[in-house]
Amino acid sequence: MPENTAPSASVTVLGLGPMGRALAAAFLDAGLRVTVWNRTPGRDGDLVTRGAVPAASPEEAVAAAPLTVVCVVNYDASDAVLRQDAVTAALKGRTVVNLSADTPGRARDTAEWAGRHGIRYLDGAIMTPTPAIGTDDAVFLHSGPADLYEEHRPVLAALGGTHTHLGEDAGRAAAYDIALLDIFWTSMAGYVHALALARAEGVSGADLAPFAQGIAAILPPLFTEFAADSDAGTYSGELNPITSAVSTMAHVVHASEAHGIDASLMRVIEGQARRVVALGHGTDGYTRVAEVIGHR
Amino acid sequence: MPENTAPSASVTVLGLGPMGRALAAAFLDAGLRVTVWNRTPGRDGDLVTRGAVPAASPEEAVAAAPLTVVCVVNYDASDAVLRQDAVTAALKGRTVVNLSADTPGRARDTAEWAGRHGIRYLDGAIMTPTPAIGTDDAVFLHSGPADLYEEHRPVLAALGGTHTHLGEDAGRAAAYDIALLDIFWTSMAGYVHALALARAEGVSGADLAPFAQGIAAILPPLFTEFAADSDAGTYSGELNPITSAVSTMAHVVHASEAHGIDASLMRVIEGQARRVVALGHGTDGYTRVAEVIGHR
Repeated sequence: MPENTAPSASVTVLGLGPMGRALAAAFLDAGLRVTVWNRTPGRDGDLVTRGAVPAASPEEAVAAAPLTVVCVVNYDASDAVLRQDAVTAALKGRTVVNLSADTPGRARDTAEWAGRHGIRYLDGAIMTPTPAIGTDDAVFLHSGPADLYEEHRPVLAALGGTHTHLGEDAGRAAAYDIALLDIFWTSMAGYVHALALARAEGVSGADLAPFAQGIAAILPPLFTEFAADSDAGTYSGELNPITSAVSTMAHVVHASEAHGIDASLMRVIEGQARRVVALGHGTDGYTRVAEVIGHR
Repeated sequence: MPENTAPSASVTVLGLGPMGRALAAAFLDAGLRVTVWNRTPGRDGDLVTRGAVPAASPEEAVAAAPLTVVCVVNYDASDAVLRQDAVTAALKGRTVVNLSADTPGRARDTAEWAGRHGIRYLDGAIMTPTPAIGTDDAVFLHSGPADLYEEHRPVLAALGGTHTHLGEDAGRAAAYDIALLDIFWTSMAGYVHALALARAEGVSGADLAPFAQGIAAILPPLFTEFAADSDAGTYSGELNPITSAVSTMAHVVHASEAHGIDASLMRVIEGQARRVVALGHGTDGYTRVAEVIGHR
C-alpha cells in the first residue's frame, strides 16, 4: 500500500472503459474502498469480484466517497453524468478529479460550473497508456487549487507513477495534454504511414522497426533544441536549413503517391515548409514553421 | 585512423553543402587524400586549409580517385553533374556512392544509367543529422552489389558510425530512407505544432519539453508493436481503440483553431481515423489506418 494512504480511504470511479477500469483496479490494489459506476452496465464484473462496490446510479456512486474520479471519453460525456441534478446535489462539498480528456476551455468551464455548485474540483490528464496505470511509468498531470490537490494527493498516489501539479488554472493540465497528444498522434500517424510506404517497397515492419528506433532516439535532443528556439524566437538553420527539408518531404510524397498511398499528411507538412521558404526564410531551421501555422 | 583505411586511399566528394562538407571533413580526419568540388564555388575554403584538393571541374574531381561520394540536394542535382559527357566518361571503371536523398525509383534509374556506362554504383542514405558525421552516432544505409560495398567499406568506415548494406536492389537504401524521413518529419511537424499550441495556452517550450521527452520515451515500444501488427495484419485495439483516439484528435483540432492556429495536419489525421471508424473498425487499434491510406 502506498505511503500515506489510510486503509479506510474510499474513492468512487465513474466511467469503466479500459482506462477507468485500470484506475479502479489500481485503487483496489492499494487497499482503498472503491465504488464504481458506468453508464453502460456490465463493465464492472472483474472489479466487483476483486472487491469493488457497484453503485446503482451515479448519484449513489458519488455519495459513497469524498473523492470521485471521472474517466469518460470527453467532457460531453462527463457533463452528461455530473450535470444531472441528483448527481450535482450529491457532489456538493465533495471533490471531483476529472481525468477525462478534452480541451483547456472545457476544463475551465467545468471548474466554473463546479464552483457554482459548491463542488471542489481538480482537473487532470493521464499521459500514459492504460497498461502503465498502477506502475512507476504512469504520468498524471493535475491543475486546480493547490491545497485541494495536496489533500487528495495520498489517494491519487495509489494510481502509481508521477503526479505533477501544474498550477491553479483548471485548464493547464488539459493544455499540456492536448499539446502532448498533438505530438503523440502526429508521430503515430507518421509511423503508420511509413509502415504502409515501406510495405509497398517490399520492406517489412520487422525490417524497418530497428531503424525507426534510431529515429525515435534522435527526437529527444531535437525536442529540447526546438523548445529553446521556440521560446527565444530564433530559428537557426545553419546545419539543417528548411530548404533541404522541403526536398526530402517531396520525396516522401512522390514515392507514396507512386504506390497509390495517400500522402495528404506529408503534402500538408511540405506545404507549410514551402510557405516558409516562399516567405524568404529558407535558410532558417524547421522551427520557423511554428510562425506560419500560428502567430507569435 | 579507422582500421583498414590505407593511408594512401583517396576519395572525391562532389557537393559541399553542410552534409557534403561534413563528409569531406570526416575523410580528411581519417587521413585520406580528399578531392572536392561544388557547383557553386567558394564552399571549400575550410576543407582546402585542412588539406583537401580543390578540383576545377567535376570531371577533374572524379578522375582524382577510384571512389566518388556524391552528396547533393536530390537526383536532379546529381544527374546534372554525373550525366555530363565528360564526367560520365571520367567515371568509367570507377565507383560512385550516391549519398544524395531521393526516391527508390530515382536510385534504381541511376544504377541502371551507371551500368550502361560502365560505372560501378552504390546507392546510400544518411540517416543522422550533420553533426553526427564522423562520430559513433552516424547511421548510413547502403544498397547495390555486395562485393562492391565490401570493396569500399574501409573507406566508407572513415565516415564513422554504423553502415548497413541492405541488399542488391539499388533502391533499397532510398526505400528505408523515405520511410524513416516520413517518421522524422511527421514527428517534427507534430512537435512544432504542439509548441505553437502550448505557447497560445501560455505554456512555454521549456515547460513542455520535459513532458515531450516522456512522449518520445513511449514511442519505441509502440514502434515495435505497430510494426508487428502491420506485418501480421492484426489490429488489436483492446486497450486503445481507435474510437478514443478520434476523440483526442478532435480536441487538438478544436483547441488549435480556437487560437487561430492552423490544424490542417491533425484534421487529416483525425479524418483518416474517422474513416476507419466509419468502415466499422472502431474497436481496432490505430495501425488499421495503414489500410485506409494504402492497400495490402
